[in-house]
Amino acid sequence: MTVLWALRLEYDGTPFVGWQRQINGLSVQQVLEEAAAKLNNGHPVASIVAGRTDAGVHAEAQVVQLPLPAHFTPERVREALNFHMKPHRIVVQDAAPAPADWNARFSATRRCYRYHILNRRARPALLAHRVWHVPQELDAAVMRKAALILLGRHDFTSFRASSCQAKSPLRTLDRLDVTRTGEVIAITAEARSFLHHQVRNMIGTLKLVGEGVWPINRVATALAARDRAAGGPTAPPDGLCLIAVFYPIDPFAANPT
Amino acid sequence: MTVLWALRLEYDGTPFVGWQRQINGLSVQQVLEEAAAKLNNGHPVASIVAGRTDAGVHAEAQVVQLPLPAHFTPERVREALNFHMKPHRIVVQDAAPAPADWNARFSATRRCYRYHILNRRARPALLAHRVWHVPQELDAAVMRKAALILLGRHDFTSFRASSCQAKSPLRTLDRLDVTRTGEVIAITAEARSFLHHQVRNMIGTLKLVGEGVWPINRVATALAARDRAAGGPTAPPDGLCLIAVFYPIDPFAANPT
Repeated sequence: MTVLWALRLEYDGTPFVGWQRQINGLSVQQVLEEAAAKLNNGHPVASIVAGRTDAGVHAEAQVVQLPLPAHFTPERVREALNFHMKPHRIVVQDAAPAPADWNARFSATRRCYRYHILNRRARPALLAHRVWHVPQELDAAVMRKAALILLGRHDFTSFRASSCQAKSPLRTLDRLDVTRTGEVIAITAEARSFLHHQVRNMIGTLKLVGEGVWPINRVATALAARDRAAGGPTAPPDGLCLIAVFYPIDPFAANPT
Repeated sequence: MTVLWALRLEYDGTPFVGWQRQINGLSVQQVLEEAAAKLNNGHPVASIVAGRTDAGVHAEAQVVQLPLPAHFTPERVREALNFHMKPHRIVVQDAAPAPADWNARFSATRRCYRYHILNRRARPALLAHRVWHVPQELDAAVMRKAALILLGRHDFTSFRASSCQAKSPLRTLDRLDVTRTGEVIAITAEARSFLHHQVRNMIGTLKLVGEGVWPINRVATALAARDRAAGGPTAPPDGLCLIAVFYPIDPFAANPT
């Protein structure tokens, strides 16, 4: 007999083809599910994830659900999965029995991503694979103004990957902050859900504004066009990290790590 | 004709045998000096460094001096060295003609190191090779109290590597802060100079206090013993980073990156 577990994962997305299993390389999902199968007498385990991160995208707090035998303790689940996922840079930070009727994907009411740009001449050494290196000077203040245009409920077709499978291009962007700390510009985006590549396409657009290639109001024009060709380019995955997923009932609340 | 340059370097120490050239592997010094030789018509270039970091130790702001032909601009020095040091995770952040009578090592009046401990059950994923992973709970408040014992001018023999070549074991520790931010404990140490392994031996000792294995006052006993066997173990290099070197005249002041 199995019961449903909720897991909070941290991972370095650099070497993976992304969250989702693919035939062309190793995915985070495969590493996790193969570790979970070892706890399930070798039987395959299918997981459901809150945010299907792309290749090279990181997570500080991804949320996943999967079934495991009923007799495990939260500590045992965490320790055993972490043992079996070695040496991959994927760890379970927290494990808890899932609340009734909870679904890691469909119960999530908000997802928060952070994107880091390293804005200096020299390429990254300590932050390699964690940032987008932009050598030309960016003005964070004008990027902040441009970001305000994207807040709220819009048709985000101009910032949506052609491969996006969502039924509707309408999304409500609740937060798009831009802050600079020395050489690093951090952009925080929050919404109930995002279209495929939406965050990276918005970042690629804000970067054009920050370096003065686009005037601020061109972001409004691009949004109104509802045409992917009108939006800016896709920012690289390296700078992107899923930092939080919110639920009406926090599955980990009773069980802090 | 060559002139003396001052360089500020960032590097990820993980794959290197340390700053200093050694026969058993690749050093940061070798990568830098071989790149500099390419700018010097192939003639060898000898550098002098502010802090000879050990294997696995990182730097956000190491300072180095070396001679280069007189006709280069600061930008050209930085860009050319960074080009030739690829793909190693070593970059020149800033380059400037050295002030008269300046020496990267002997003119330095203060060095600042920061050490990061990841204090949680799960091993690091995103911070792998950047932190010391300590799974047992540490009390940062008692570590802070113990750190105060080490401040000031002391004979640090109990925290000095047996291989240390300094003439005197007397050093003045100006700062040893301990702060916790969530799962990460940061310890910042500043002094005119440190003995070999002094920072890591102090960290290894504070960790024993933080986990309750040592009472706070045992740090005073260890310091007074002037015996390496009385001090705590050496913390791993991964968590250590040279973050600043101070000079009476900042060689980079006129030339901000």
